[in-house]
Amino acid sequence: MVDAFGKCLSWREDEIAARMGVYPYYHAIEERTGLNEVRVGGRTLLMAGSNDYLALSTDPRTKAAAAAALRRFGAGTSGSRLTNGTLALHEELEAGLADFLGHEAALVTSTGFQANLALSPLLGPHDTLVADQHIHASLIDAARLGQARLRRFRHNDMAHLGRLLDAAEPGDGLIILTEGMFSTTGDLCDLPGIGKLAAQHGARLILDGAHDIGVLGPGGRGAADHYGQLPAVDVHTLTFSKCFGTLGGAVTGPERVIRYLRHHSRAAIFSASLPAPCAAAALAALEVIRTEPERRRRVLAIAERLGAELAALGFDAGRDGTPTIPVHVGDTLPCLRLWTELFEEGVFTNAMVPPGVPEGRALVRVAVTAAHTGAEVDRIVDAFAAAGRRLRLID
Amino acid sequence: MVDAFGKCLSWREDEIAARMGVYPYYHAIEERTGLNEVRVGGRTLLMAGSNDYLALSTDPRTKAAAAAALRRFGAGTSGSRLTNGTLALHEELEAGLADFLGHEAALVTSTGFQANLALSPLLGPHDTLVADQHIHASLIDAARLGQARLRRFRHNDMAHLGRLLDAAEPGDGLIILTEGMFSTTGDLCDLPGIGKLAAQHGARLILDGAHDIGVLGPGGRGAADHYGQLPAVDVHTLTFSKCFGTLGGAVTGPERVIRYLRHHSRAAIFSASLPAPCAAAALAALEVIRTEPERRRRVLAIAERLGAELAALGFDAGRDGTPTIPVHVGDTLPCLRLWTELFEEGVFTNAMVPPGVPEGRALVRVAVTAAHTGAEVDRIVDAFAAAGRRLRLID
Repeated sequence: MVDAFGKCLSWREDEIAARMGVYPYYHAIEERTGLNEVRVGGRTLLMAGSNDYLALSTDPRTKAAAAAALRRFGAGTSGSRLTNGTLALHEELEAGLADFLGHEAALVTSTGFQANLALSPLLGPHDTLVADQHIHASLIDAARLGQARLRRFRHNDMAHLGRLLDAAEPGDGLIILTEGMFSTTGDLCDLPGIGKLAAQHGARLILDGAHDIGVLGPGGRGAADHYGQLPAVDVHTLTFSKCFGTLGGAVTGPERVIRYLRHHSRAAIFSASLPAPCAAAALAALEVIRTEPERRRRVLAIAERLGAELAALGFDAGRDGTPTIPVHVGDTLPCLRLWTELFEEGVFTNAMVPPGVPEGRALVRVAVTAAHTGAEVDRIVDAFAAAGRRLRLID
Repeated sequence: MVDAFGKCLSWREDEIAARMGVYPYYHAIEERTGLNEVRVGGRTLLMAGSNDYLALSTDPRTKAAAAAALRRFGAGTSGSRLTNGTLALHEELEAGLADFLGHEAALVTSTGFQANLALSPLLGPHDTLVADQHIHASLIDAARLGQARLRRFRHNDMAHLGRLLDAAEPGDGLIILTEGMFSTTGDLCDLPGIGKLAAQHGARLILDGAHDIGVLGPGGRGAADHYGQLPAVDVHTLTFSKCFGTLGGAVTGPERVIRYLRHHSRAAIFSASLPAPCAAAALAALEVIRTEPERRRRVLAIAERLGAELAALGFDAGRDGTPTIPVHVGDTLPCLRLWTELFEEGVFTNAMVPPGVPEGRALVRVAVTAAHTGAEVDRIVDAFAAAGRRLRLID
């Protein structure tokens, strides 16, 4: 008899990494000791790897909204949106998001991951889905759960996208799927190019704005807003776990499409709805995003400064005008070592190694928030300088 | 050019139902006006369709724990468990759940839906997965995302399960997947039969305890505890959105398996982690579940009484000793009408119609909580009597 759990017994990469002292995952935060400070293993670290770009997860307004909703509705809704788990609060949030993104309607889901999975009924057996090769795992899973023919175009390669659209099955509906800002590398999709190709081919465009809605564009409406191309986006997905400072997600789009998803998306129908405290926090965050553009200007200025200083040190640091800065290392072990040295220097970053990134493209991802001070940016730069020199990654 | 969104334009079942005045979905709760009372469309209704079986979503202890965690950690973690989103609170909850269910380890996920999706890496290309035909949508999606050969056995049919295990590919690892308590029909899996077949065939057993952990069994450990068969369960999944009164979920099992999932489960790795208020509420709920067996005895006694009274009225009401009572109607339209009449009588239930249930097996699902009073059970019975007579479903 073969043991189905045998696969788990043979796998021990994490133990090897841990034994080498370069294991960057699942480090537990014991306490938040400051706006950008956490205690891990009894040590106080500067957090430089969070997606809390606007620093709204601990903003007094989101916390107060969450606390009030907790008192009023409790810690959970005890049901799915479809049956007994829809609150007027969800509808208010949906109306607000749809209005914000210039769409007719929205569907709020319990995670951003599930907002993307909720797309799968749109990806039907008579559709060709053409997706960027760098899309998020949740979008790949949505494609797997959907029935469309899946084609992948090389990252931001418009010529390749054009050829795949040309080569689609005649009679298929065409859907282009990509992200506004790519989470690992911090770069933006080529929306002007994609919008043009979508119009030429009569393709629908679905854009995941998880990392960019709230922080990019003059109105904070994401990469599409940045490019002045909001009308080119037929369906937007977003998450509340980055700029909105809580948990949850949403799909926005034409009323007909959202209505269809509300009745066909398994990840929306067969999952308990978003607790009131999270929905209320997201609603409060939306209000801040609408009314305080200085917050996104601040985080982008901090990122700009940090990227410039890391590049001046000699690092190959991405500088795409977004809050996340990839520091490209290349091989896996030096990348894990850089992460570890930074951790020892008191700075918490994220190590991105294969299979999360292609072989030979390992990187340390730094992310800043609107609450990072100038002194904290100095500390991040100093830590990179010390760690990089010790590892001979820079001179 | 074909419009990929055309599928949404042609679909309008929900509008037809709404026009007929029998649309049971997405009714928004404006306020919780009492332990089991909600305001919907300005009217006060008795909630009899919630999964809050132990009434812990509004318990002062879960709310206080959530409020304290909100003050301490904010409304979100801004990162995945893998990178910057693990809190010591998650680890404490994992240790508590593993200990509670007699397993070595646990992995907490952001929804129960994602706890089930997180199983998919266990379902490998050299495995045969044999699953009950009534398993939840999230388990079906986990199977779709996994690579195992999927076989379905007729609901609780041990002879059929045995034949499928006999017929599995030689050399495959074998996995049996079912639920402790089935959510729609409220019946239990035949765990003694399944345990015997699993042992005979060297198959691993994965049990979804979403609806039963917390409420069934002498220790509240679910259907397996009810049958005295906890050791037969190799991996348990559960949710915090039923008995635990909040959002989130977990997988428990051998340390090796959980470690493997922590590094391979996309739904765990690529999704923001559970906010501290939800994790804290779940931890507080676990303590109540451990220490107040009278709470589950109370809800089961209420369900027993309600089932008996509905049966005495002449309804075909399921009576499996669980908190959910299916009232079998059969055809879809009479079922939607019964739901609507109950709603008009001031009682909120759940209508389960195709494709959620097989054609001709529509039912109204009633669920009770530990907080329902005798007078409230009377109101539910009276509403069923009035609605049933008006629709000539009973004499």
